[in-house]
Amino acid sequence: MRARLQLDPEHGRLPERPKGADCKSAVTDFGGSNPSPATTWKARPRPGFLHPSPTLANVSDTITIRAATDADWPGVWAVLEPVFRAGETYTYPRDIREESARASWLGGEHTRVLVAVDAGPGDIVGTAKYLPNHPGAGAHVANASFAVAARAAGRGVGRALGQAVIDAARADGYRAIQFNAVVDTNVAAVRLWESLGFATLATVPEAFAHPTLGPVGLRIMHRFL
Amino acid sequence: MRARLQLDPEHGRLPERPKGADCKSAVTDFGGSNPSPATTWKARPRPGFLHPSPTLANVSDTITIRAATDADWPGVWAVLEPVFRAGETYTYPRDIREESARASWLGGEHTRVLVAVDAGPGDIVGTAKYLPNHPGAGAHVANASFAVAARAAGRGVGRALGQAVIDAARADGYRAIQFNAVVDTNVAAVRLWESLGFATLATVPEAFAHPTLGPVGLRIMHRFL
Repeated sequence: MRARLQLDPEHGRLPERPKGADCKSAVTDFGGSNPSPATTWKARPRPGFLHPSPTLANVSDTITIRAATDADWPGVWAVLEPVFRAGETYTYPRDIREESARASWLGGEHTRVLVAVDAGPGDIVGTAKYLPNHPGAGAHVANASFAVAARAAGRGVGRALGQAVIDAARADGYRAIQFNAVVDTNVAAVRLWESLGFATLATVPEAFAHPTLGPVGLRIMHRFL
Repeated sequence: MRARLQLDPEHGRLPERPKGADCKSAVTDFGGSNPSPATTWKARPRPGFLHPSPTLANVSDTITIRAATDADWPGVWAVLEPVFRAGETYTYPRDIREESARASWLGGEHTRVLVAVDAGPGDIVGTAKYLPNHPGAGAHVANASFAVAARAAGRGVGRALGQAVIDAARADGYRAIQFNAVVDTNVAAVRLWESLGFATLATVPEAFAHPTLGPVGLRIMHRFL
């Protein structure tokens, strides 16, 4: 349960943040005036891991992951919208309006949002967010969410974002990360999180109304930091 | 897992609500203009269940449970505040301000709030709320929260509120109820939910910073409706 992740030495780390007695104090706002400097993760391609990658041209991609700014929203929404509309991996309403999605993804004062930027064209190919899973006495456990653009599938973007959130949440003082709703049929996501040290604590039966598969389970996954 | 609860014939039921394809449509707002009529539950006393009850005078209490109205807030807050300040059973910040607590407990458009009223003095001795645990494809599973005034301990108020939420959530079209954060050391609550048909799906380790016991687990409990 306390599996430690061996960091790829090519992986950068977000700058250490001062650790207070309350981890919440170290969690910065989205769109704050001092976003974290960009950190470059060398995406480790795993052809066929998220989706089969038909070309080798993707293998050497470099993905830059950095804190999101307000100006990133259009690119973030371009990643999120098709994921939310498909309704196969998230519990957001499929017809959610952009403004509601923006408010939900960017969250409140304790939410941090990251973006993965393709170093070539410079556009956003993925995003992640994390925040306290509960307030108060539960605020030392983070919750996180992820989305990757379909066109960037197979480049290791999800893995790089996952590693970035693990590093950043640890630096913020969180003690663990908990996912509340990993759709059981999202096998690629389950495998990715397991490979990053997460274990399934439970699967809530029939908790997700899949648009084509009907009621499927929602996994609650967890790892210590 | 699909344990069916045998209803006490003395128990009333909240009026049936029209069931739409989407259970959310049947969930009414807090403080709406047409609150549900009051329904009387005969509280089944279980001396020593929640707390030892030193007198038999409490045994025949009748607790009325009804939808909350805006005017109930002061009485609801009087129940909630000592629970939140103690910090032993909820993840609300212990220093939460009343306005934040009000916004959080009363929730958004899909939250329903109940109150338990002591038929004698007529004051509020307990409250519960329920809402979709997730939006969208997860909105058929309810989440619920409960609090009972210390002075009403041992009268069966928690049990009556639990039964009322089970009945009302089923009538609203929910298919299950999920608790995300039952503090593992809150043995009375765990026993109560188990006796009402809930099972522990998992205990998230060290997820709750108990003010005197240190890090303890948070149970995720569930029952179908």
